[in-house]
Amino acid sequence: MHAITVPATRPYQVTIGRGLLSRAGECIGQLFPRRSVAVVSDDTVFALYGQTVMHSLEASGCTPCSFVFEHGEASKNLTTYSRLMEFLARSRLTRADVVAALGGGVTGDLAGFAAATYLRGIAAVQLPTTLLAAVDSSVGGKTAVNLPQGKNLAGAFHLPAAVFCDCAAFDSLPEHIVRDGCAEVLKYGMICDAELLRLAKTPDVCKSEAVIERCVRIKSRITAADEHDTGQRQLLNFGHTIGHAIEACSGFSCSHGQAVAAGMAYITRAAARMGLCREECAAELESTLRAFGLPVSTSIPARALFEAALSDKKCTGQDITLVLPQAVGQCVLKTMPSGCLLDFIKKGEQPL
Amino acid sequence: MHAITVPATRPYQVTIGRGLLSRAGECIGQLFPRRSVAVVSDDTVFALYGQTVMHSLEASGCTPCSFVFEHGEASKNLTTYSRLMEFLARSRLTRADVVAALGGGVTGDLAGFAAATYLRGIAAVQLPTTLLAAVDSSVGGKTAVNLPQGKNLAGAFHLPAAVFCDCAAFDSLPEHIVRDGCAEVLKYGMICDAELLRLAKTPDVCKSEAVIERCVRIKSRITAADEHDTGQRQLLNFGHTIGHAIEACSGFSCSHGQAVAAGMAYITRAAARMGLCREECAAELESTLRAFGLPVSTSIPARALFEAALSDKKCTGQDITLVLPQAVGQCVLKTMPSGCLLDFIKKGEQPL
Repeated sequence: MHAITVPATRPYQVTIGRGLLSRAGECIGQLFPRRSVAVVSDDTVFALYGQTVMHSLEASGCTPCSFVFEHGEASKNLTTYSRLMEFLARSRLTRADVVAALGGGVTGDLAGFAAATYLRGIAAVQLPTTLLAAVDSSVGGKTAVNLPQGKNLAGAFHLPAAVFCDCAAFDSLPEHIVRDGCAEVLKYGMICDAELLRLAKTPDVCKSEAVIERCVRIKSRITAADEHDTGQRQLLNFGHTIGHAIEACSGFSCSHGQAVAAGMAYITRAAARMGLCREECAAELESTLRAFGLPVSTSIPARALFEAALSDKKCTGQDITLVLPQAVGQCVLKTMPSGCLLDFIKKGEQPL
Repeated sequence: MHAITVPATRPYQVTIGRGLLSRAGECIGQLFPRRSVAVVSDDTVFALYGQTVMHSLEASGCTPCSFVFEHGEASKNLTTYSRLMEFLARSRLTRADVVAALGGGVTGDLAGFAAATYLRGIAAVQLPTTLLAAVDSSVGGKTAVNLPQGKNLAGAFHLPAAVFCDCAAFDSLPEHIVRDGCAEVLKYGMICDAELLRLAKTPDVCKSEAVIERCVRIKSRITAADEHDTGQRQLLNFGHTIGHAIEACSGFSCSHGQAVAAGMAYITRAAARMGLCREECAAELESTLRAFGLPVSTSIPARALFEAALSDKKCTGQDITLVLPQAVGQCVLKTMPSGCLLDFIKKGEQPL
């Protein structure tokens, strides 16, 4: 078991180990003895782990209640958020109580946003059950839901009170869900850890405790230094500007991980073709993504991706900040007129 | 003209004067040159000041757009919030742009919550047009909408970037709207400024620049010292626990000011009858409220008020924190088992 303390404004711990879900009551009860805990989960995940977590919470002396919603990105909207908020109010949760997000990125983002805004903020505990949530969305305090106009446009910064990551949950994940998480692991490799990109060659390696810990340490370091995403934290958006546009343009039929994979490939090829990095950098990324069965391109027209990207949060007025690779393990931020993004998308369109 | 700097984590200025709405462009443009400004307003207020503010913004080089909703507390919900969020996204506001709340408390709370959560937070400028908003809701960064289960249950702390309070707007306010604001002025008197309670004898005095400034200075001092409402800021909730319950039980036919007036009367009479303050204190408050035409009681059963109050944010688990008067100009916080609130409501029910 590994415990990482994230040195944020309000420090919190990320615990990584096996069997943590069946000890959820003990874990949460230690921090919030005898409180009410609203377990938020989608139907798929709740069917797998819901009763385990609920019983564990009861056994620890907490009072659990559960809110279960239909799985999938389409549920991550203000309608589900409203239903969840009313559920928390009907369940009479107070400021001393807890929202526990049991699931993947959608659940963590949605439950986190509800916790951030219910009574102007109550504690959120993250129980990630996907690799993507474990290495990325459960850490750092970004919470959000989508609007019809784009991903994560409604949200808040709300640090979790704690994260308990049960690696045993990843054993039973469908292959494509694991692959989504692998895309984010490879992202860490590209932005600041070349060794990680070379080490993480298979999904099994990606979902090992060692690699998860390595990713969480990177995310912890970057997010604690820039809690509100005004500087270096934007490095974590590598592949995400085009990635979010791909997700939106596909009507979310393309998963987050797939979209980020293709987004990373686009921007890295564009950078190589513009002489901002060596072509080997794009080639290494592209071949790694292909080895994982992750996409490196899409058939969505460049203009459509560009239009969708302009709705993205990362676009500030006339300018946009892009994360550009200089080499494997080394990305930098560049702010430029928004219009330039279209060039990048066009230049990055064709696979090598 | 008075300018008060609120010494919050992120300091901001409250400017109080006459004619500020027709100079809104200049005021906002100075802080946010050439940005997009989404003016949020209800139909009544927009009809009065909308064009003035929009033209002023255009003249200053900003790009204004407007979102107008139906006036009234019933609009302060997650449905209007969702529509507003989609409007901001459709208008392509970025993190560098501004939401301007033009109106009373409902508008300020709703627009403030949208600004707090759109793209995880963009700047909010408050342009209060009611006395209540000027002396209370526009300052301090509390934003929220109501849930069916209770008032302000969904919200965030989000400090305004600036507040511009045009006292000329209060000249045309209907009498009952002014009275609502007077209730909050009297609240400041009760909690910490006995002289203010004796000075503010008429609505005209209450809406004077001098009294507004005095109230804003009190609110500024208390909120800056306790931004997240975990301590002394709760003093500002004097009359509000029972007040919110009265609003909810009346189906919001009772206005916030009326409800707070009655709430203050209930709790002060209860305190007097329990020997926590002298009866003269309750008598002075009650006669002052009556002189303003504000209610000092309701016909809502004590049990119903109690049940509604338990949904209130101020209730933490088994405990509730009440604001109790010791004398005019001196209130204290007391945390007690939630059940005790029923005694207070019953003891405070009958007018003197």
